[in-house]
Amino acid sequence: MMKKMDYQNVRGTQDYLPKQEAIRRTIRRTLEDTFILYGCKILETPILNYKNLMASKYAGGAEILQEMYTLTDRGERDLALRYDLTIPFAKVIAMNPELSMPFKRYEIGKVFRDGPIKTGRLREFTQCDVDIVGVNSQAAEAELMMMAVDAFRKLDVDILIQYNNRKLLYGLLQCFAVPEAKNRVILVLDKMEKIDRMTLVKELEELALTSDSLAAIEQFLDTEPALDYFEQYATLNNFVQEGIAELRELDSYLQALNIMDNCIFNPFLARGLEIYTGTIYEIFLKEGSIKSSIGSGGRYDNAIGGLIGSDQSFPTVGISFGLDVIFTAFELNGKVAAESEIDVYIIPMGVEKEALQLATTLRQQRKRVVVELSDKKLRKAMDKANRENIPNVIVLGEQEVKNNTYQLKNMMTGMTEEKSYNFSKPLLKR
Amino acid sequence: MMKKMDYQNVRGTQDYLPKQEAIRRTIRRTLEDTFILYGCKILETPILNYKNLMASKYAGGAEILQEMYTLTDRGERDLALRYDLTIPFAKVIAMNPELSMPFKRYEIGKVFRDGPIKTGRLREFTQCDVDIVGVNSQAAEAELMMMAVDAFRKLDVDILIQYNNRKLLYGLLQCFAVPEAKNRVILVLDKMEKIDRMTLVKELEELALTSDSLAAIEQFLDTEPALDYFEQYATLNNFVQEGIAELRELDSYLQALNIMDNCIFNPFLARGLEIYTGTIYEIFLKEGSIKSSIGSGGRYDNAIGGLIGSDQSFPTVGISFGLDVIFTAFELNGKVAAESEIDVYIIPMGVEKEALQLATTLRQQRKRVVVELSDKKLRKAMDKANRENIPNVIVLGEQEVKNNTYQLKNMMTGMTEEKSYNFSKPLLKR
Repeated sequence: MMKKMDYQNVRGTQDYLPKQEAIRRTIRRTLEDTFILYGCKILETPILNYKNLMASKYAGGAEILQEMYTLTDRGERDLALRYDLTIPFAKVIAMNPELSMPFKRYEIGKVFRDGPIKTGRLREFTQCDVDIVGVNSQAAEAELMMMAVDAFRKLDVDILIQYNNRKLLYGLLQCFAVPEAKNRVILVLDKMEKIDRMTLVKELEELALTSDSLAAIEQFLDTEPALDYFEQYATLNNFVQEGIAELRELDSYLQALNIMDNCIFNPFLARGLEIYTGTIYEIFLKEGSIKSSIGSGGRYDNAIGGLIGSDQSFPTVGISFGLDVIFTAFELNGKVAAESEIDVYIIPMGVEKEALQLATTLRQQRKRVVVELSDKKLRKAMDKANRENIPNVIVLGEQEVKNNTYQLKNMMTGMTEEKSYNFSKPLLKR
Repeated sequence: MMKKMDYQNVRGTQDYLPKQEAIRRTIRRTLEDTFILYGCKILETPILNYKNLMASKYAGGAEILQEMYTLTDRGERDLALRYDLTIPFAKVIAMNPELSMPFKRYEIGKVFRDGPIKTGRLREFTQCDVDIVGVNSQAAEAELMMMAVDAFRKLDVDILIQYNNRKLLYGLLQCFAVPEAKNRVILVLDKMEKIDRMTLVKELEELALTSDSLAAIEQFLDTEPALDYFEQYATLNNFVQEGIAELRELDSYLQALNIMDNCIFNPFLARGLEIYTGTIYEIFLKEGSIKSSIGSGGRYDNAIGGLIGSDQSFPTVGISFGLDVIFTAFELNGKVAAESEIDVYIIPMGVEKEALQLATTLRQQRKRVVVELSDKKLRKAMDKANRENIPNVIVLGEQEVKNNTYQLKNMMTGMTEEKSYNFSKPLLKR
């Protein structure tokens, strides 16, 4: 006997059984089909990468590097499992200078982070990313936000996209005389909605800012989050001015696309200390069953050039959806697959061959068919049909085969319909 | 500047650019949609597993274990990347005793082997597996073989499934007085179609068999591969008898399903020293552009019970398709995506907002639309449309917006059609 541990799952990983995975397949395909309609091209990059690439300066930063799974292959190469789809994407841009710009790609794939586990957050998880390289205009951001709204409408989920601009935030901190070395302020502000005001102020105080800076930030925290308010700083600071201009441009697109109901400006949104240079956004469920964001992204104009060591400019905007957190929200909301994955269940009584023939014909008509091939008794088979909510059952015996008919029983109504089928006729080739 | 190596791909891995990956998506979806019609339920298992599980005795065997990528996480756990989808499947069966039998599942996912690289064989590759647990009858094998023929017909590929039975092979070796310790004979026989006769005989001689055994095997190699021939051994050996009975049962199913043109009995097929206990099969392309098999499988009744340390019987039949080798065959045959991934390309002349509005409406009509959002000149944009074979182009200017019309240009015929569209009307919410 093996020890039990041998068939446990590794902490932070999990199996998805058919009922769960069918929902995940629906989410994945809905996102993918939407990406395709928005003209995104599919890309696939490897999970295994050189550790050097994944650890490069313009990549995820120190926190993420600690969470990187590393390994050595038989050729003594230092490898790492990818922790996002952005670095592999930048690598593809670097390796294929012939790619025509703008380049708009999607990739759906597994990424790995050896970090803390919480609801909807695993160590092995699936990201669904879209990135556009080569567009300077805020139209790119607006189109990605529209795409998010569109995809989630198809999934019958109402989302709220909080957005901000890093230039505005950066400029405001300059106006508040917060030195650049204290940019941890951004991380604290980002917690605004997660922690209470006292804790927030305490964390700000720990950063040892001047009392003037602190007072200015506190006043900022009490600000009504409207863009007009920040105009007063625009004349003082170029970053503020650019940030406001970009936000106004973005707004005009969101209005043209009629998605203002799904988008809200949040001047405190910061998105960590990451690579973003302009617009940033984070996507939440309106109904609030899950506090974590289900997606996020923004503009990062310097990262690809930096990553590939080029002076060429690569204006880039991305959006990333977390399949696992979306799935968790579906589960929490009881959005589980109630429907059967099967249309017709054929129970053969000694006529397995003919049952498989009939199944072949029905499958050619796009019906999802299971033939009971175990030696299950009829009673047990009918129990299974009921338990699994299979809508149609055919019990096939010698008499039916002889008469070239079968009885299709609708399990909802209990009604039976007689159909004719030529069992003696050889199946068509195609 | 980074060193070039930093953005190389790891040996044995590769990126799939959009033109390639679009074909892979077609292959993957065709396989998946076929699996669903055959009533297979979707399962997803992690890539990260405990090393102990992947290295267990009933798993892949010594050769595969050498090729296993291993790593340690921050909690000092010994982990391994999965090298197939079978062990994770067995683990799911072990962990979920409530699963209703027969259980028919598919999984499509990445697996990893740090082994030699050849055409269509990588270190990180995608397998598409179907397995059925709980069916003793050869009907299960026949249904999986039918499913393979069906899927590849949809892909417009003609396949040939070679099949055999391990009981027949095992029994014949007993009849030839080959001791069990010499079962490497099976591996040599399996090379039958890959190496010439002289090399084959030389490899057999190296196994130090008796001259009687060697003579019997040589006679076997000259055998016309018909089942009748082996009847003479059936009375001498139970395994031969059972093997022949199972093969005849399988044949009767293949005939009923009318796929004998795609299936051929090959008494020399051995499928390595693996876990198989009955029927085995290997799938090849009829046109022979690629010598490797594009899929394989068979019956392995003892592995799951063995893996999970249970005396319970788990009759299991599986089939596995290699996405990468199928894709390589498609590439070799010039089956590349000639069609555009885009239906309509909108080039706005200063009216980006209205272009995005129109795009939204067209996308709601299931059209794949790209809006040119870079500051590309019209001439360059038209070049791009031609280069990428985009079938329809809309050049949208202020005049069109004012008149609530647009011109849809068919790039094949050069004809332009005027359409009306209300740019001032707000977009529908859903």
